Amino acid sequence: MEFTAQQIADFLHGDIEGDPSVKVSNFSKIEEGKPGTLSFLSNPKYIHYIYDCKASIILVNKDFNADKEIKSTLIRVEDAYQSLALLLTLVDQTKQKKTGISPLAYVSETAKIGENAYIAPFVYIGEHVTINKNVALHANCCIEDEVVLGENVTLFSGVKIYNNCVIGNNCTLHSGSVIGSDGFGFAPTEDGSYKKIPQMGNVVLEDNVEIGANSVVDRATMGSTIIRKGVKIDNLVQIAHNVEIGTNTVIAAQTGISGSTKLGKQCILGGQVGIAGHLQIADGSIFGAQTGVPNSIKSANQAFQGYPALPVMNFRRSSVVYKNLPDLQNTIYAMQKKIQELENKISSIS
Amino acid sequence: MEFTAQQIADFLHGDIEGDPSVKVSNFSKIEEGKPGTLSFLSNPKYIHYIYDCKASIILVNKDFNADKEIKSTLIRVEDAYQSLALLLTLVDQTKQKKTGISPLAYVSETAKIGENAYIAPFVYIGEHVTINKNVALHANCCIEDEVVLGENVTLFSGVKIYNNCVIGNNCTLHSGSVIGSDGFGFAPTEDGSYKKIPQMGNVVLEDNVEIGANSVVDRATMGSTIIRKGVKIDNLVQIAHNVEIGTNTVIAAQTGISGSTKLGKQCILGGQVGIAGHLQIADGSIFGAQTGVPNSIKSANQAFQGYPALPVMNFRRSSVVYKNLPDLQNTIYAMQKKIQELENKISSIS
Amino acid sequence: MEFTAQQIADFLHGDIEGDPSVKVSNFSKIEEGKPGTLSFLSNPKYIHYIYDCKASIILVNKDFNADKEIKSTLIRVEDAYQSLALLLTLVDQTKQKKTGISPLAYVSETAKIGENAYIAPFVYIGEHVTINKNVALHANCCIEDEVVLGENVTLFSGVKIYNNCVIGNNCTLHSGSVIGSDGFGFAPTEDGSYKKIPQMGNVVLEDNVEIGANSVVDRATMGSTIIRKGVKIDNLVQIAHNVEIGTNTVIAAQTGISGSTKLGKQCILGGQVGIAGHLQIADGSIFGAQTGVPNSIKSANQAFQGYPALPVMNFRRSSVVYKNLPDLQNTIYAMQKKIQELENKISSIS
Repeated sequence: MEFTAQQIADFLHGDIEGDPSVKVSNFSKIEEGKPGTLSFLSNPKYIHYIYDCKASIILVNKDFNADKEIKSTLIRVEDAYQSLALLLTLVDQTKQKKTGISPLAYVSETAKIGENAYIAPFVYIGEHVTINKNVALHANCCIEDEVVLGENVTLFSGVKIYNNCVIGNNCTLHSGSVIGSDGFGFAPTEDGSYKKIPQMGNVVLEDNVEIGANSVVDRATMGSTIIRKGVKIDNLVQIAHNVEIGTNTVIAAQTGISGSTKLGKQCILGGQVGIAGHLQIADGSIFGAQTGVPNSIKSANQAFQGYPALPVMNFRRSSVVYKNLPDLQNTIYAMQKKIQELENKISSIS
Repeated sequence: MEFTAQQIADFLHGDIEGDPSVKVSNFSKIEEGKPGTLSFLSNPKYIHYIYDCKASIILVNKDFNADKEIKSTLIRVEDAYQSLALLLTLVDQTKQKKTGISPLAYVSETAKIGENAYIAPFVYIGEHVTINKNVALHANCCIEDEVVLGENVTLFSGVKIYNNCVIGNNCTLHSGSVIGSDGFGFAPTEDGSYKKIPQMGNVVLEDNVEIGANSVVDRATMGSTIIRKGVKIDNLVQIAHNVEIGTNTVIAAQTGISGSTKLGKQCILGGQVGIAGHLQIADGSIFGAQTGVPNSIKSANQAFQGYPALPVMNFRRSSVVYKNLPDLQNTIYAMQKKIQELENKISSIS
Repeated sequence: MEFTAQQIADFLHGDIEGDPSVKVSNFSKIEEGKPGTLSFLSNPKYIHYIYDCKASIILVNKDFNADKEIKSTLIRVEDAYQSLALLLTLVDQTKQKKTGISPLAYVSETAKIGENAYIAPFVYIGEHVTINKNVALHANCCIEDEVVLGENVTLFSGVKIYNNCVIGNNCTLHSGSVIGSDGFGFAPTEDGSYKKIPQMGNVVLEDNVEIGANSVVDRATMGSTIIRKGVKIDNLVQIAHNVEIGTNTVIAAQTGISGSTKLGKQCILGGQVGIAGHLQIADGSIFGAQTGVPNSIKSANQAFQGYPALPVMNFRRSSVVYKNLPDLQNTIYAMQKKIQELENKISSIS
């Protein structure tokens, strides 16, 4: 498919600077722009690329000021990143979706499959599973007994959902993610061995949740581990049993949330963050990458970093001093010596 | 199934306070207790929930003292958490187990399958595999050539076991876990590229081991990577080649143990801990979450935290000072100034 | 198969000390050496094991000097570790390879399969996939539409490759690894929810790349996430969208590289390292385990450690002082007191 700058500007309600008839058929990053592609500028770090960019069209923010001549046709929009998202979504939606239930899938006789399903080869669907309409299950997914999948759910290849879990509408789960595995619950016994606590609860994903590749959400011991509406979870993330993640919270890769902790809504967690168990984390909390959180956070909309977590400005100041600790130590030892000298002098005077 | 408080108290050898005829049919957490369910109080953090809890029955420790009236019927037991575990296990055991070998599984003609097996669709069982009795293999598991599975082994969907590995009795492996992948062994060459060291060993899991979802245990270069009896490993954990984990050691999620390290028995590792390679870690060592361990630990039953690891009390004290480093630095600079002033004064006096 | 010390020494161009006719049929680690096996000594940490080692043959470096008598026959070579690698590779190559396409695999009619392929049961191969010669796909692998696999590619069981990704020659991907999952791209909207940015790019693995078990490489938003020739990636590693990893860089387990970061060639990353997004990392950079990298690295061949990353010697010095911070703080408070006393004395004198 080809589009002209004019067609794209009309669709985005943007303003053209340059040739409105130039055509594009693909997207490119601004540092790799090629003729016939559309690129965009959003992150100010990348501004310097725009002057040599060979993309035919570049989306920019309305307030962008060029320092030099730009060869590409510009389309000025309110928010270049959101406009790009809109275009990508448009193109994405034109892709033909697969449908049909493969004869190489296993579907229990007691499972209910909604209309317009795509079920690939080697998908396993257990007893009393309920699958609503427009669901896509790629190859080798396993849906155990009594699971419910909402409408428009997409499971990429090799997703595994344990029995009795519930997946809301419009959820997307990436390859290798596991929902509903046993929480890590063991009671110590007198001989030093551990006795397993059966994990009898389940996992509930509300609507519009995305779970990254190879991430794991454990089932509750009792009740439910709950991922609220609009939560986005990256790859290789660990969500322990009885955790609750608030609406629209986003969690970057390799972060882990320990058992029974409740995260508020609209939180942002960087990569490799660790949060201890049985905590309450206030709405809008922000945690920098690799932060370790040992205590509850009571006040909303605060940013933290470090191990253990400090208010982010505090962490930055302390880490600057940390870097200079050896010098500081030498300063202290030098001062000790001077004080000793002063004491000696004073003794000799008095 | 329904049970009365009397029946449960008899089974647990507990004492009833309240109505012995009240009935429950499910479990609930104390903060979510509903009529008709049994709850429990073990963690003192949760005591305040008991006074408003609507659960019909609550298990409490013998020595629990109520500050206010409690509406639920109490059953007092030696250890409320262990009693709960007992009840959960009882209910868990009444669940019907699946059996039979699916015609949609692939089982090599040279594999031996013990009695009472459950082998789900799309399970692959390679040549000369030995599977003992009462084994459950959920959908899409892959058991490569020459693997041995002990009695009562459960593999949830999508577990992969490479050739020649040995899994002991009563082991449970969760979805997506990988046993026996190649260790990370490469020798540098003169042109800057790396030459793979073939990994010829295997992995041995002794009895009663549990491995979490998407965890990985690499095979040894030579000999065996060994997970001893009773070890419990959480999700997304990395165990490198030639590691040995001692009896009854427990390892929380996202922790990594580097090559050839030997962990003692009865150790406890928090989440996201990292342990360097070729170390010896003494029995009963305890590592707080996110601890980084660069050296061997020789003395048993010590607790550590931090990066790099310090004795836990030492870490706590240092991290309190770390938080105040900017103030401390200011104090030092102020002292420098004062010393200078004193020097000047003394010069003027003497 | 059995080999004499003479045969092995001839093959490795090594010198024998001891009985040239002694035979071995297997390998062993030096701390576990048994009669009939060949062991090796490379890491100086393990020297003390050689005097009691029961292996029939031990490979040692040419310059090794024994302090005591050694019972085993020695073969002296230029580099014992590389010689071992050579022998292991030789033995590995004698193993019979499986071939043939299982009738229990699903292969799209539009896919092209090269000669000498092994395709196991329950492998899914989508439309217009191109598979070159000598490829081995173990059970339950999923290769989505339009993927290209080079020659001599091995995918262990349960590898998933999303549509349009390209895998170079001689690549090895371990079980559960995921190539081409969506990058973590969401644009915030006014109501607090996030809108997905469709990820339209792909992943390109160049030749001789190895990817560990359960690692994930996300597809680019636009363009390609690129893993250059000879890169070796361990288990449970996260490579985000639009990342580029330079030639022969090695990355240990559980490390994460954030979006759009470009790593140079010949870098070495320890385990659990985190690198922030949109950075440039110079060739030959070395990062110790658990290091957090917030900024670009411009100067090549430097080593870093810590959170945030410091030059490694700087980190070591600072972490020594960190350990003693409580004492240092006490020293400072004691000095404050002394300065006060001196001030008082001086006031009384003058």
